[in-house]
Amino acid sequence: MGSKINRKEFLKKGTLAGLGASMIPSNIALGKKAPAFIQGKDDRKARIAVIGVGSQGGNIVQGLTFQDDVIIPAVCDINPERVAHVQKMVVDAGGAEPTGYSNGPKDYINLLERDDIDGVAIATPWELHTEMTLAALKHGKYCAPEVRGAFSLQECWDIVRTSEETGMPVMLLENHNYYRSELAVLNMVRQGIFGELIHGQCGYQHDIRYVKFRPGAEFGEKGERAARWRTNHSLHRNGDLYPTHGLGPIATIFDINHGNRFVSLTSTATKSRGLQAYVREHGGKDHPNADIQWGLGDIVTTVLKTARGETIVINHDVNLPRPYSNMGRVQGTKGLWMEDNNSIYLDGMTPKQWHSFDPYREQYEHPLWKNFLEAGVRGGHGGADYLKTRAFAQAVKRQVPTPIDVYDSVMMLAVTPLSEQSIARGSAPVDFPDFTDGKWVNKKPSFGLDGDF
Amino acid sequence: MGSKINRKEFLKKGTLAGLGASMIPSNIALGKKAPAFIQGKDDRKARIAVIGVGSQGGNIVQGLTFQDDVIIPAVCDINPERVAHVQKMVVDAGGAEPTGYSNGPKDYINLLERDDIDGVAIATPWELHTEMTLAALKHGKYCAPEVRGAFSLQECWDIVRTSEETGMPVMLLENHNYYRSELAVLNMVRQGIFGELIHGQCGYQHDIRYVKFRPGAEFGEKGERAARWRTNHSLHRNGDLYPTHGLGPIATIFDINHGNRFVSLTSTATKSRGLQAYVREHGGKDHPNADIQWGLGDIVTTVLKTARGETIVINHDVNLPRPYSNMGRVQGTKGLWMEDNNSIYLDGMTPKQWHSFDPYREQYEHPLWKNFLEAGVRGGHGGADYLKTRAFAQAVKRQVPTPIDVYDSVMMLAVTPLSEQSIARGSAPVDFPDFTDGKWVNKKPSFGLDGDF
Repeated sequence: MGSKINRKEFLKKGTLAGLGASMIPSNIALGKKAPAFIQGKDDRKARIAVIGVGSQGGNIVQGLTFQDDVIIPAVCDINPERVAHVQKMVVDAGGAEPTGYSNGPKDYINLLERDDIDGVAIATPWELHTEMTLAALKHGKYCAPEVRGAFSLQECWDIVRTSEETGMPVMLLENHNYYRSELAVLNMVRQGIFGELIHGQCGYQHDIRYVKFRPGAEFGEKGERAARWRTNHSLHRNGDLYPTHGLGPIATIFDINHGNRFVSLTSTATKSRGLQAYVREHGGKDHPNADIQWGLGDIVTTVLKTARGETIVINHDVNLPRPYSNMGRVQGTKGLWMEDNNSIYLDGMTPKQWHSFDPYREQYEHPLWKNFLEAGVRGGHGGADYLKTRAFAQAVKRQVPTPIDVYDSVMMLAVTPLSEQSIARGSAPVDFPDFTDGKWVNKKPSFGLDGDF
Repeated sequence: MGSKINRKEFLKKGTLAGLGASMIPSNIALGKKAPAFIQGKDDRKARIAVIGVGSQGGNIVQGLTFQDDVIIPAVCDINPERVAHVQKMVVDAGGAEPTGYSNGPKDYINLLERDDIDGVAIATPWELHTEMTLAALKHGKYCAPEVRGAFSLQECWDIVRTSEETGMPVMLLENHNYYRSELAVLNMVRQGIFGELIHGQCGYQHDIRYVKFRPGAEFGEKGERAARWRTNHSLHRNGDLYPTHGLGPIATIFDINHGNRFVSLTSTATKSRGLQAYVREHGGKDHPNADIQWGLGDIVTTVLKTARGETIVINHDVNLPRPYSNMGRVQGTKGLWMEDNNSIYLDGMTPKQWHSFDPYREQYEHPLWKNFLEAGVRGGHGGADYLKTRAFAQAVKRQVPTPIDVYDSVMMLAVTPLSEQSIARGSAPVDFPDFTDGKWVNKKPSFGLDGDF
């Protein structure tokens, strides 16, 4: 613990404290209507930089530009074209041009050294997240890394310990936590509509082969965009590489780390066929990539057990042709919700068959979505990209904890290495670490409590 | 192998061989239209007795009475009222009254001693199936036990070895193998529509609390019908107690034991809440059963791995309020079928969303169902009860192997003790025995090959 850093020391440099908000250039967009529900009573601003502004980082910048109380002082990317692209995006939205950082892989440190930045979002390739997260925390910034899966449990612990030592929050930018149906289900669960929870299902079921190979059947050095770096993980690894979209909302619904926790999991992978078939179809049988043996099983099924005795099943299914689905299911002693047929059944309903979820979503609309609908839905992924960046920005602006905290964040990330371990050991059960060191027993839920953020 | 019994010895007593069909009293129902597709070219009859004629055994008798080439020489039940009930059912259907056997728990042996019986169906409480199956085989009868889960792997081996030694077939009476959509999917898989198979899901998701408690909150000695004997299994056991309805069709689709096999599984159970809640709701909090701690987790998730590298997930979900569903999903490199939203997606379909399965079911209607529809659908469970008893009867009549054989039968039964073992060991993976002793490598599929039976 020799490197333990006092929170106050960090807060001295580079936070909102002591900065007059009126001194700060503003991104307030002329002509853009501010959502009625988002503004605080004062004119403070959240100053948020974005590191990594490719496709997903660009979404984050866009989400931030929608918010009148956010300033984007700086953006960083190894690719200067992407920096220029989002600089223009901010200017077009009426904000001051952010400083661009594009001078090699460590230029982000220069961004972090600035004391006019309160928080950073990180949307670089997965391998860089932990290094950048730790650096951001040590520079006294709120930190919002994009979603992925971790590589080791140790990096999860490093993130936890550094957040604890610096006092700086970490919020995984999981947009699915903010999906409308999922938030309505959360609302219903908290009102006891489903009774005592028993079982959940979720997953990332998304045909992303066109992301893994671009152009055509290329990836790696010949690939473009995410195909440059993401696809190699499918070559070398076998596990649930992307658990958070399914797990994010389910974890809040099942109070994970807030009165509950995961205790163990098993994970089982199928053979790998989808990627090779895609390469052969799009590159031909003589393509240099045609005979590659991929490490990642096409479908990975993970079964988690909770301290309260529930089970959660997560599917990872990204290499095969299929419609998008998160396989959502939330089941308790009084009924269940199912995403795939947009249905619900509650005890006593007649006939004893699936009923449409639509009227229930309306009846139990989450306050956050009530406000969002009133203000006007905006942003990518049905508005969820806006809500997630807004939640982070509000926490930064108000200097309060993020609604998804560091323990929630690493809990989601940790599924990946645990899944890999279980598969490598023939689906043996593996223990799920308690990253809270027992705090989960008394922690109250912090996510989606009201219509604020 | 001292008890090895030559098939011919068995065939000498009590089979069709040497019996003139014209000598046999017939159940041919006057005025009943024979399904066009079922009759052989000769007038042979299958002589089938039923042991255990409660609710499910009554369904079997009904299914048999629909068939003009079946004779029911005898029925057996410890309860003389049930014997009388099904005797009347046969007579009402135009058949000769079967002899009733009701003189205590061993009277079924006297039934088996008869040499005018070629096959027996067994629908007694689960604990009696193996004893009766072995006795039937040793008496040279084709044997068709109803579905359940086994208690031990040893009883599965005993059934296999006795069938091998006597040469008499065993066919688990799994009606779901004969469901219309599932057979269409099987047809599609065999035509390569889904490409190479990768993943399947299935289950028994059926709120049977009203079966486990009858009347009111009673079971065991004070219970009625299946509540007398079935409910105790939920008290003492924790595992997938009823895997075959989901697994039956999936096993045929994935060629299990016919070029493929299960190699291992993990199983994970939730806490148990549903049964206690039901007792309290229907019996009150002061009911003597209100505080019982039930052994069976409300939802049991089992993940099987196959020799070909596919995964199969089975859900057991029978203690909670819910609509009926077998959770069917069959997924390959070219697309997938989903039961719960009656949908399909095949590579290249636009838009990239779920499409109705209805036109595909029609296009790929299984020949068996084409014939069945033409002949007129009849019998319980949408006709599946008729088709399963008919399949058994045709095999008996023609003296050919049953389409679901002894290896297929015990494979389905064995999931239960394996699931119990895995749960007891904290979801540890357990090996799935190869009941075929390697024959699966060269065995061709035998189920649903054409429109015959």
